[in-house]
Amino acid sequence: MSDLRPLFAPRGVAVVGASRDPGKLGAVMARSLGRFPGTVVGVNARDADPAAGRFATVAEAAAASPDPIDLAVLCVPAAVSARALADAARAGVRAALVCSGGYAEAGGEGGDHQDALVAAARDAGVALLGPNTSGFLVPARGLTASFVPGVAAVPAGPVAVVAASGGVNHALTFLLAAAGVGVSLAVGLGNAAGVTAADVLAHLAADDGTRAVALHVESVTDGPALVAAVRAATARVPVVALVVGRTDVADFARSHTGALATSWRTTRAALRAAGAVLVDDERQLVDAVTALSALRLPACADPGVGVVTAQAGPGLLHVDGLRGRGVPVPPLTGGTRAALSGLLPPLTYQANPVDTGRPDPVFGRVLATVAADPAVDLVSVYALAEPDVLDLPAAVAQLAGAPAVVGLGGPPEQVGPQRQALRGLGVPALDGPTALTVAVTALVDDARAQARRAARGTAPPPRQVPVPSRDLDEDEAKTLLGRLGIATPPRRACADRAEAHRALAELPGPLAVKLLDAAVTHKSDVGGVHLGVRDAADLDAALDALEAVGAARFLVESMAPPGVDLVAGASRDPVFGPVVLVGLGGVVAEALADVAVTPAPVGAQEAAALADGLAGRALLDGFRGGPVADRAALGAVLAALGDLLVASPGIDGVEVNPLRVTADGLLALDAVLTLTTKEAAP
Amino acid sequence: MSDLRPLFAPRGVAVVGASRDPGKLGAVMARSLGRFPGTVVGVNARDADPAAGRFATVAEAAAASPDPIDLAVLCVPAAVSARALADAARAGVRAALVCSGGYAEAGGEGGDHQDALVAAARDAGVALLGPNTSGFLVPARGLTASFVPGVAAVPAGPVAVVAASGGVNHALTFLLAAAGVGVSLAVGLGNAAGVTAADVLAHLAADDGTRAVALHVESVTDGPALVAAVRAATARVPVVALVVGRTDVADFARSHTGALATSWRTTRAALRAAGAVLVDDERQLVDAVTALSALRLPACADPGVGVVTAQAGPGLLHVDGLRGRGVPVPPLTGGTRAALSGLLPPLTYQANPVDTGRPDPVFGRVLATVAADPAVDLVSVYALAEPDVLDLPAAVAQLAGAPAVVGLGGPPEQVGPQRQALRGLGVPALDGPTALTVAVTALVDDARAQARRAARGTAPPPRQVPVPSRDLDEDEAKTLLGRLGIATPPRRACADRAEAHRALAELPGPLAVKLLDAAVTHKSDVGGVHLGVRDAADLDAALDALEAVGAARFLVESMAPPGVDLVAGASRDPVFGPVVLVGLGGVVAEALADVAVTPAPVGAQEAAALADGLAGRALLDGFRGGPVADRAALGAVLAALGDLLVASPGIDGVEVNPLRVTADGLLALDAVLTLTTKEAAP
Repeated sequence: MSDLRPLFAPRGVAVVGASRDPGKLGAVMARSLGRFPGTVVGVNARDADPAAGRFATVAEAAAASPDPIDLAVLCVPAAVSARALADAARAGVRAALVCSGGYAEAGGEGGDHQDALVAAARDAGVALLGPNTSGFLVPARGLTASFVPGVAAVPAGPVAVVAASGGVNHALTFLLAAAGVGVSLAVGLGNAAGVTAADVLAHLAADDGTRAVALHVESVTDGPALVAAVRAATARVPVVALVVGRTDVADFARSHTGALATSWRTTRAALRAAGAVLVDDERQLVDAVTALSALRLPACADPGVGVVTAQAGPGLLHVDGLRGRGVPVPPLTGGTRAALSGLLPPLTYQANPVDTGRPDPVFGRVLATVAADPAVDLVSVYALAEPDVLDLPAAVAQLAGAPAVVGLGGPPEQVGPQRQALRGLGVPALDGPTALTVAVTALVDDARAQARRAARGTAPPPRQVPVPSRDLDEDEAKTLLGRLGIATPPRRACADRAEAHRALAELPGPLAVKLLDAAVTHKSDVGGVHLGVRDAADLDAALDALEAVGAARFLVESMAPPGVDLVAGASRDPVFGPVVLVGLGGVVAEALADVAVTPAPVGAQEAAALADGLAGRALLDGFRGGPVADRAALGAVLAALGDLLVASPGIDGVEVNPLRVTADGLLALDAVLTLTTKEAAP
Repeated sequence: MSDLRPLFAPRGVAVVGASRDPGKLGAVMARSLGRFPGTVVGVNARDADPAAGRFATVAEAAAASPDPIDLAVLCVPAAVSARALADAARAGVRAALVCSGGYAEAGGEGGDHQDALVAAARDAGVALLGPNTSGFLVPARGLTASFVPGVAAVPAGPVAVVAASGGVNHALTFLLAAAGVGVSLAVGLGNAAGVTAADVLAHLAADDGTRAVALHVESVTDGPALVAAVRAATARVPVVALVVGRTDVADFARSHTGALATSWRTTRAALRAAGAVLVDDERQLVDAVTALSALRLPACADPGVGVVTAQAGPGLLHVDGLRGRGVPVPPLTGGTRAALSGLLPPLTYQANPVDTGRPDPVFGRVLATVAADPAVDLVSVYALAEPDVLDLPAAVAQLAGAPAVVGLGGPPEQVGPQRQALRGLGVPALDGPTALTVAVTALVDDARAQARRAARGTAPPPRQVPVPSRDLDEDEAKTLLGRLGIATPPRRACADRAEAHRALAELPGPLAVKLLDAAVTHKSDVGGVHLGVRDAADLDAALDALEAVGAARFLVESMAPPGVDLVAGASRDPVFGPVVLVGLGGVVAEALADVAVTPAPVGAQEAAALADGLAGRALLDGFRGGPVADRAALGAVLAALGDLLVASPGIDGVEVNPLRVTADGLLALDAVLTLTTKEAAP
């Protein structure tokens, strides 16, 4: 990765393509850079005026500049940008920002222009941001390299914005500023032909001024690099990620940055596994980093939230929201409730949420009492600004550093100062019950992610199994599952009818009798499966039928008891590599696309939690008298399937369908293994 | 309903329980009312000081007042509030606000105090708001009757807030003010012991100053009254409803207003059917009324949205959001695209969304071109404020009144004036891509609701069927379904084995043979169902088994072809009355609680759309080679079941389970009818 300090902390900046026309990009850029305390020079070969700070070449500008020119902002047509970059590099420039479009996103010659630009940057060792982006800003350095000059009003602060899109970068920074939160760095990557999100994350991992990262993702080219960068960054600062493309917007997205939108589900799963907190829209992103830039909980697998509300109605909206997002609002202990009953009038609800009624001077003691409850890791407070009766910052100060987050309603002239006073106490303040809910959820999700990271260190290494050199039939695939520790029903692979009849005698019935052929992956579709075989007559009928569809070998197997069918598998995502998936079986679940996915390798404990992401998870917990899934065993199965792919490049995918939840445990009833390079069966 | 003008447009106001102690409720109320241009007097029997405007009784205050005292704000303990109200009424007061708690929400004596207060109000013909609310405000009248004085800063404007909770009322008005939108009336109902949401909606239906209503609902006592009020209000102004209680928060909710939270799903369905737009949280509520108070689309079953974005990234977030919410972003016609290609550089995406790239003076012509497309009913615009290159209000003015909504990012000093200028053009402005998405969705949902209302006028009256006087067995229930036009498989009710064998000969096989007894509603659970009966031996075995479980009569029926099983039914909701429901059959769908509900009566066309609300709706459209459901027939079935309950008070519920989607149409395979008053079978 290239050093990004010349880009984000340059000593001098040259605007190449500076213009006198105030509407031109070069002129707008020069205005944006007007407050930069270092050197800013213009370069325009056809309109040089050194007295006005406009030189014919970067070299001339550099020679006349008191500071080294580290960064060139190229405001020139795509066709000449590679040459301009090379010229600048020869004059000592170490970083380049290219805002204009007409590159890969435009197709045709644009792709060639981008290739030339990237090659020039690589050859010269220049960090290239863009092309096709609105730029970046570093308010603490007075550095606004953006063609939206209004963004210079965004204050310095603890949030770094790393956005795929220049427009989203600006939209986010304006929303953050409105929320009273400033930025350390805000960058739009555009076509990300040089500097990628992973590069910026690596840069931020060493930036003490950044306390939370807002990451906006449209597409991912190098999944492992992004995952590694998020993992490294989250070790120090929380990363909150918004992934675009829940619906199919690939066509428009490609026109936008020249890249296909990556699978939304897999990208989210990979970022989550790497330690990021996921959100659904840019507003939630702002709420989440507003909270996480002021407060980070320690690692905790399941933090409990104590809710204190001065107004019951907004508190109800907040608690309803928390429950809907799976955030625990645990009952308070008897001791806490006894203490609260001494503080609050008897009319109020004190169970968690704690409703104080109209707040009064005991509000701070109520907060401290709730924070002291052993089940409470975070106190969430909602209050309307009522300066006549409540000094909220003073009340919150009574928490003495216990983690807290506040939702605060009121007129701006009251909310603004209280918000800043609260942030001074390390307590983030949001503007309403829903923003508070999103903020609390983010704090809890980040604590959970840290706990998963901590637990991960103890996972055993992947189990090694012999890798097949050709496609496996069902018997061989099940033998392989057995080596992975995955249970299957008793079975016999039978080369002829006599062997099948011996199997009938030996195996507990009733039996399934199937065509056994590695070349036939969808046996049911060709009449290759016969169920409920109980006696010799049944068996002969089944064998007749199988021979009629061409079966030369048979699999005879005890039928599994009834239960809930799952689908479990592992496959190779083109961007992120091996992933594990689990879903409910059957056509209804399939129609609902009710599947959860996570990157492999994954530990058994973490994989066990994967099923909690299924909409139909109730079916795993003894729904309507059905069996209860052994979650630990399910986690072990999923982890083993993931390990198989990680350890075996020759295997492209494995699908266990169905994996049946029975009263006696999990059973793999069928399995298909796909090899990366298919070879003809011998 | 009582006249609410004395409450919301009083000529004079008395604060009963006025206090010199600035922290007391009476003192805070007096401060809040300080800007009211009409008469405000204090009443305090123990601390009268007429020279300071504090009288011993309301009568004395009224006698000394230049204006009639229409409204009494009672700041007295619960135990004496009924007497205080009666006293005030005798002095001519016509409306009362009771903010304090200690009534039904507190339990015990509180319920008695509330009963007494309500009785006093009823006897005196006084409109009672509260108790247990923070009050209301009418900024255009300078009237702030709230114990949160800061709310006096909220400007007058076109949105009415009708909130179950006083706290939510204030939280919403502050959020609206921050969004640049003022209120015509903002009221928190508290315990709603007198004035209900329905009453306020009826008041607003005649208020020309209100252009949109934000309705917050925690519980509903009188469902039909609320539905009627929403229906009447939405004929003139859009109503946007937020219903609390997606998760189980009933315990806390009851402590809050003394009422059980009503079924979230049914409440939402009833409000939607009445014409309201539904949202998921208070932030969406603000976005929706921000839009609908500036712009209402005409009735339209499926309005198309043309998206124009000056920045592709935020545009992508917006379009992804719209698609996820089912808002159509239709392709533009060839003519429109030809016109756009003459306006925009070739690099930009022009298919819808239309990405202008960096905006320039043609932006207004792009907007007008998109608005002129026959597929476009609303133009949605996102842009960052870039005053150097784009005068957004001037560009939007080129739409010449075509419906449009804008998302606008930038520093507040640029956004604020542009937002007001846009609203002056009838174009609402939101602060980001997601707020814009919510606003567009609300505009579209309201247009669809108006279209449903218009279509509803043509629905035929409910079909009358004879109402049974006792529980029906399956054969009788299916006969009744037949009268409703619902198809069932061929069947015979058989009194003995001989009749069953005749049925075997007559009916197309294979057959289902079932126990026939009105007293047994879950036949499968007692071994009362035998399937796949093909011959006399099968039949005898089935009859033997049925007799063994006590069957005296049998239902012999042709088995239906395979297909997708639904559950369809109608039942009586305790709050809203008859409702119709449809869901997917089977245990997976049951675990997912994938059910859609709507009040009855409902027209067949509207009922047909109900299935679009199912998560598993793909199963109805020929999923994996399955049958395609005849949606019109499904709508007719649901409408008929609803009509049955509406026309037949003696029927408590009817459930068709399964209702099978087959290649030959819908078939009711089983049906259970429940009577309101159960009588012993003869």
